[in-house]
Parts: sequence; structure tokens; C-alpha cells
Amino acid sequence: MSEQFIELRKMFLRTKDDIHNFMDILTPRIENAKDDHERLYYHHIYEEEEQRLDRLNALIPKMESSLESELLQTPENTEFIRLLQDISLEKFGLHNFLEHLDLALFTFKDTEYAERLHQMRNTTNTDYQTIKGIMNLLNQQFDGAAFAAGSIPTDEKEGVNDSLKIEKYTTTPAHDHEDHNERVTEKKPMKRLTVGSLKGKKEVI
Amino acid sequence: MSEQFIELRKMFLRTKDDIHNFMDILTPRIENAKDDHERLYYHHIYEEEEQRLDRLNALIPKMESSLESELLQTPENTEFIRLLQDISLEKFGLHNFLEHLDLALFTFKDTEYAERLHQMRNTTNTDYQTIKGIMNLLNQQFDGAAFAAGSIPTDEKEGVNDSLKIEKYTTTPAHDHEDHNERVTEKKPMKRLTVGSLKGKKEVI
Repeated sequence: MSEQFIELRKMFLRTKDDIHNFMDILTPRIENAKDDHERLYYHHIYEEEEQRLDRLNALIPKMESSLESELLQTPENTEFIRLLQDISLEKFGLHNFLEHLDLALFTFKDTEYAERLHQMRNTTNTDYQTIKGIMNLLNQQFDGAAFAAGSIPTDEKEGVNDSLKIEKYTTTPAHDHEDHNERVTEKKPMKRLTVGSLKGKKEVI
Repeated sequence: MSEQFIELRKMFLRTKDDIHNFMDILTPRIENAKDDHERLYYHHIYEEEEQRLDRLNALIPKMESSLESELLQTPENTEFIRLLQDISLEKFGLHNFLEHLDLALFTFKDTEYAERLHQMRNTTNTDYQTIKGIMNLLNQQFDGAAFAAGSIPTDEKEGVNDSLKIEKYTTTPAHDHEDHNERVTEKKPMKRLTVGSLKGKKEVI
């Protein structure tokens, strides 16, 4: 079984719990909104996170099924590559959640929910850095095939003016996950890396 | 060539233009935001629409390729079914865009952009109703396989309290697309419908 897939599965289960918590926090704001604008605003974020929940609920069983059949984890298996690409989209989903939480921290900062939102924000930030590292590694192992269109936030895109980015999302903090120290550009995977196993083995020619 | 795919392709090219227009409208708001909260708010919507643009830029060539090889449009072709599911997610994307535009109309209502936003809002609303009809039809033809997790907005979900929905999105206006008159629940496709062709032929036993 793949260590990375096990870690990602745990991460997705953790963020599912956080989505439920976040939806519960948003619910009274939708129901007691002072006007149509406020109601639409909270409804909109609620709906986007509920959609992420739906996606994760479909993705996690596919990951579990893949974990049970490791022999099929090859670049030739299009279903497996699609699975990696779906995971790659959930990387963007975690970044998006981070921004939802940061937006909420502006309007909930003086409420009983502020501490819980801060905790979720910190967990999500750590998880986002972890999934970035894992996806970089998987892209090395599968020669860039784990990349999906729509997986890179504006904040991390090359060729986008800094005036459109938010600085705190553009810097990558140091972290302690052993597989994440090597930065590989996602859009242009290094062609000279060999396709390794999902065990985390790294072989550079 | 499938009439529905041609219509969807036109719709996606149209919404791509609107995404660009919308991003251009948002740009000065991000760059000249009065504080960090406002900057994050506009940046966040910009980023989500840019992600939708990335997804559409990957999806449209796949649709064009599928249009050129109609023989492969079968329920047994997993790549084709995944294409239908990707299109289904863009149905949600159009609903989400509608909400982004409605949110923008609150804050841009007294600006030079209001009329353009209204036009985009109306086009998007019409397109959303059209894609819903087309996806219902494709779900009939492919026995529910065109459904993707994450394709149904909170506003249209059964089992969600009305207090969390926005009324104007829960009602389906009348429209003139001939394929959309027959309503089929997406989550529970009618098992007794035959699998038809993509030409729009409907056979009900």
C-alpha cells in the first residue's frame, strides 16, 4: 500500500470533518442574514464546500480501491492516472478552502467560532503544503501525468502579475515532511526522472 | 456529430469569453482594494473563475476530439463516460458563475460594469438551463452515467433544507430548447429508459 495514498486519505477524511464543521458555522449566517447580499455570500461559500464534500465522497472510495490493487498503479492504467488527476484537483480544493477560512476569519473574528476557524485554517494550511509535496513526488514518478488542468491556484502561477496574488499564499513555508524538500515545477516535470514506485523511492538519473 | 456536443461547445466558448470579461472587471478591484479583506474577496472569485477557465481549456479539445470519432461514443467507452462527467461538472461551474455574477451585481451596481454584468448574468442563466436539459437527456441516453459527484448545486438538492437555498435558483424557468421539456431527476435516472444515440433520439419503453 502506498504511503502517500494513505496520508492523502487521512487528509481527505480530516478535511471532510472540517467541511462539516464549517458548513455548521455558516448555516446560521445564511438563515439569519441581514439582507439578500449577505445571504447569497454565505450560501455561495456553503455550496462550494458542499460540492467539495460530494467530490471527496466519490474520490475516497476510489483511492481505497486503488490501494487494494497496487499492481494497477502504472502510467499505462488510464483509470489510475485519472485518479491521480482527481487528487490533484483536490489540491486546488484545499487551497480554496484555505481562502474560504481566511475570508470567514474576517467576519467571524469576534465570535465564538474564531478559535475553531483558526484551528481549521492552520490544519488546512499544513495539509495543503503536504499535498503539494506529495503531488510533486507523484508527478516525478508518473512523468507529469498526475497534473490536472485547474490544479494550480492563481497565487502559484507563473506569468500572473503579482498584483493579482495574495502574498501569504505565494510563499511556501518550511515543513517537516521528508518527501517535500525537493521542489519540482508541476507544469514542467523533469523528463530525466525515472518512474519510481508509489513507496516514495526517488531515483534521479 | 452530436447536436448536443456542438451546442455545449458553443456554450463553453461563450462562457470562456465571459470569464475573461469578468476577470478584467475584477482586476482593478483586486489591485485597488481598500483593505486585505476586500482584496482577498475579489482575488478569491477571480481565482475560482481562472480555475474554471483552465478546466474548460482542457475540456473543449477533448469534446472536439470526441465529436470527430462518434463511433467511440458508447457507454462501454470509459474515456467517453469520463468526458460526460467532466461536462457535468461544468454544469455546476455555470451555476457557480451565475452566483459570482449575482454577487458582483451587488457591489458593481452603480458602476460602468453593471450593464455588462447583467448581460453576462442573463446569458449564463440561459446557458445553465440549457446544459441542465442536455445533461438530463445524456443521462437518459447513457443510463445515468453522465452524472458526476459534485454536479448538483445545494439549491437543487433534495433533502437540503430550504432555509439554505436561494429561491431564485431553485425554480426552473420555462425556455425554448426542445430537448428540455422532459424533466428527469439526475440522481435517480429512470432505469427503464433505453440507451439512445447522441443524436437526441428519445426512446421510452
